[in-house]
Amino acid sequence: MFQAKARADILKEVVNVVSTLVDEAKFMVNADGLTLRAVDPAHIAMVDLQLGKDAFEEFKADETEIGIDIDKLSQFLKLARSDDIVDIKHDEEKRRLNFVVGDITRRMSLIDTTGMSDPKVPSLNLPAKLVVKVDDLVHGIKASESVSDHIALVANPDDFEMLCEGDMDQVQWKKSKKDMGMLESPSTVRSLFPLEYFSNMLKAVPSGSDVTMHLGNDYPVKVEFKIAGGKGSVSYLLAPRIESGD
Amino acid sequence: MFQAKARADILKEVVNVVSTLVDEAKFMVNADGLTLRAVDPAHIAMVDLQLGKDAFEEFKADETEIGIDIDKLSQFLKLARSDDIVDIKHDEEKRRLNFVVGDITRRMSLIDTTGMSDPKVPSLNLPAKLVVKVDDLVHGIKASESVSDHIALVANPDDFEMLCEGDMDQVQWKKSKKDMGMLESPSTVRSLFPLEYFSNMLKAVPSGSDVTMHLGNDYPVKVEFKIAGGKGSVSYLLAPRIESGD
Amino acid sequence: MFQAKARADILKEVVNVVSTLVDEAKFMVNADGLTLRAVDPAHIAMVDLQLGKDAFEEFKADETEIGIDIDKLSQFLKLARSDDIVDIKHDEEKRRLNFVVGDITRRMSLIDTTGMSDPKVPSLNLPAKLVVKVDDLVHGIKASESVSDHIALVANPDDFEMLCEGDMDQVQWKKSKKDMGMLESPSTVRSLFPLEYFSNMLKAVPSGSDVTMHLGNDYPVKVEFKIAGGKGSVSYLLAPRIESGD
Repeated sequence: MFQAKARADILKEVVNVVSTLVDEAKFMVNADGLTLRAVDPAHIAMVDLQLGKDAFEEFKADETEIGIDIDKLSQFLKLARSDDIVDIKHDEEKRRLNFVVGDITRRMSLIDTTGMSDPKVPSLNLPAKLVVKVDDLVHGIKASESVSDHIALVANPDDFEMLCEGDMDQVQWKKSKKDMGMLESPSTVRSLFPLEYFSNMLKAVPSGSDVTMHLGNDYPVKVEFKIAGGKGSVSYLLAPRIESGD
Repeated sequence: MFQAKARADILKEVVNVVSTLVDEAKFMVNADGLTLRAVDPAHIAMVDLQLGKDAFEEFKADETEIGIDIDKLSQFLKLARSDDIVDIKHDEEKRRLNFVVGDITRRMSLIDTTGMSDPKVPSLNLPAKLVVKVDDLVHGIKASESVSDHIALVANPDDFEMLCEGDMDQVQWKKSKKDMGMLESPSTVRSLFPLEYFSNMLKAVPSGSDVTMHLGNDYPVKVEFKIAGGKGSVSYLLAPRIESGD
Repeated sequence: MFQAKARADILKEVVNVVSTLVDEAKFMVNADGLTLRAVDPAHIAMVDLQLGKDAFEEFKADETEIGIDIDKLSQFLKLARSDDIVDIKHDEEKRRLNFVVGDITRRMSLIDTTGMSDPKVPSLNLPAKLVVKVDDLVHGIKASESVSDHIALVANPDDFEMLCEGDMDQVQWKKSKKDMGMLESPSTVRSLFPLEYFSNMLKAVPSGSDVTMHLGNDYPVKVEFKIAGGKGSVSYLLAPRIESGD
């Protein structure tokens, strides 16, 4: 059993976070809320999302798995205004999820979750930790987009920078510790990432949010932020590209 | 002889209504105003439009036929602000319609109307009649667009619904009689229509308007609404798709 | 040596003017400011731009040539708000121009200017001179765009018109002397121009500006306007298309 009511903008935040990596997703629902863990088809990135039941206007659920076509849900939510309440009900018999907003009912066939994996979050030792406004990062990413396909994240005790080096040009975005929410980096660490993945992840973060990043040396980056006004949390993990020695 | 002045937004309403079905159109002009009747190339839909002379700022005409390239007129009107006055003059000798707005004069060659048909409006006995806000309908249509190519319109004594059933999913939009301007349906009637035609027709209705629909069982739907602030009227007729028995 | 600070909107004006004709450009820099003279690849149009040092917040330069990829600069400037200050520094050793705005540094490789020509501005005797608002011209151009590929500019002692004649249709835009900033045309002069070039030139003029045009009979048109709030000036020259006699 699963039935709930939620503001459309909260569901849109969830859809934005998930659609960055996958088209279809398996949500785990239980009495406390819902969680999702998914890996993109190329196995380069992982998302781990938790949305507590208090993020909903109403929430009642037994433990169950629900497979959703994220594109369809996204499309449907575009019809709703931010503060519309979306009514969700699991029709177990017909294997559908039914959404109602205003005069409109959409009955959506669920996706078979049998073959969908349950990725494990790897345990990582990432020495640097920092907090920065997502809008600042997005601005720096935009400046990088035409210069190279990769972006280096570099933290040292005093500042954090994103560096994008093409054959001809270079873009550098830099913040000192005093202009950031937090920066703890015992030494200089640097890892290189695929720009498009990193960019898409940051675009899924609600504007105005703080993003916490954990960073190492040629190690994955962990990107954490809150959704649903703090009643949900997301953690992205993105694999590094190992730099050649030259 | 035909010469007139009209607000650009009224001409834009006419163009929106007509361009939904045809690229070229034959307007009948006489001392009382203008009328147009046209069928789309696939013979699935018909438009019947009347614009009284009081919809114009100035209007003087003898009885004549005028063949217009609707795309060209639409393009020209995009240059005008809603409240610009467009000056129209028929140059019979050069077979042109001349439009003036502000500093700009566009002299447009008329289309030969010799081969253009004069469709008859069929006499139909449609038992259900209802009045609903166009914006509500458009919202329901948008929800349906990715689900199927067809939409069923269903009226019964208590409510009116649009139903779009795909292989996997279903969209239902429903209004009860009390939330509508009017609903008279002695029994349940249902007809199925091509979604794109129906959608395009409704998009041509000025936002905020009431739409009157006449509906039967596997019969065409008649969609009526006012344009030019009530000084013009439009009636669309759309052929049903007969549902197979399964 | 060249280093300067400038408001982003002023640099955007320069980029708009230049990108109309060329993708790569050679700027001449000296203690007084910068100048550029370029011809489009088809040798149909020329731009002559001057930006005085007082258009900059700070400006220090020895005489030098700087080859810039205009697309890249345009892209970079899109990241800046109009009133952002852009810091520019020539790194002679690495043959780069370095731009800083906010947290972002872009280091841009310069283009080799060795092969780039130094066009001479031809001396022309253009009898008609007129001043008109660019927005009026742009409006008239838009009305012409689908009618023909060419536009005739016609001046006589009393008015100025742009005339676009297609096989079927005709667009005429006309201003009388009393509605213009100035009109001096001893006789009727008329020249025909490629519409797209003329349109692109006018789109590069800052909205709200006065444009001065010099016109002759089957002669180039000279289009002059100010940029940088009067601290820079642009002169475009566009070759006529000679009309066939029929």
